[in-house]
Amino acid sequence: MKPTHIEHIGIAVKNLDEAIKYYQDVLGLECYNIEEVADQKVKTAFFQVGQTKIELLESTDPEGTIAKFIEKRGEGVHHIAFAMEDVATALNEAADKGVQLIDKAPRKGAENLMIGFLHPKSTKGVLTEFCGKK
Amino acid sequence: MKPTHIEHIGIAVKNLDEAIKYYQDVLGLECYNIEEVADQKVKTAFFQVGQTKIELLESTDPEGTIAKFIEKRGEGVHHIAFAMEDVATALNEAADKGVQLIDKAPRKGAENLMIGFLHPKSTKGVLTEFCGKK
Repeated sequence: MKPTHIEHIGIAVKNLDEAIKYYQDVLGLECYNIEEVADQKVKTAFFQVGQTKIELLESTDPEGTIAKFIEKRGEGVHHIAFAMEDVATALNEAADKGVQLIDKAPRKGAENLMIGFLHPKSTKGVLTEFCGKK
Repeated sequence: MKPTHIEHIGIAVKNLDEAIKYYQDVLGLECYNIEEVADQKVKTAFFQVGQTKIELLESTDPEGTIAKFIEKRGEGVHHIAFAMEDVATALNEAADKGVQLIDKAPRKGAENLMIGFLHPKSTKGVLTEFCGKK
């Protein structure tokens, strides 16, 4: 299974309001949704750029993965999500090819989409998400 | 000026051949171009995913920016390029809004496109490129 497009780019930011202001004022993009994803301990803001969303991620917990990412590497791109017709099949195919999975089965992510993560150790350093369609 | 889409995602890799193999075998993408950009000291490989390209970057020089990036942060996403109708105007507008530019004027990048970089200090940690159209 191959991806149809880049569904979103996840970007870790320290302060969501300041980052929203940058993407709006400088890049001219419109924030169309702000959403808290409790089980990922993040507050997210979304912008559409062609087929792809920019997903800004601010940690809601100093022990959350986004807080730890920023502590280690600073603000910046956290993950890339590829749009897949069928996330379960795509995860299984990746596992069959030797890729280490973070999620062995799809789970619900932001915007109620089914998602699954591949481990960056298996993906040349890029935390990679497969993301289903609405 | 606002971007029409994500033109490409630049990903720093240690070994271009191994990374190409991953994107082909695991993600099912096709490498349609390999190109050396001498003044950026990189060899690049391109894959199309919907509107967006994946641009893999291997340094051709241990002192090059990609080699130094990997030394400091490991393999991973190096920059995001937004497609702009007019790169010169987009750079000027960003500068007018207080953004620190790496390129004050457009220069020729990979695939003969005009490009210009914004400094990650001004862009919430994301090395940001504006990229023209063919």
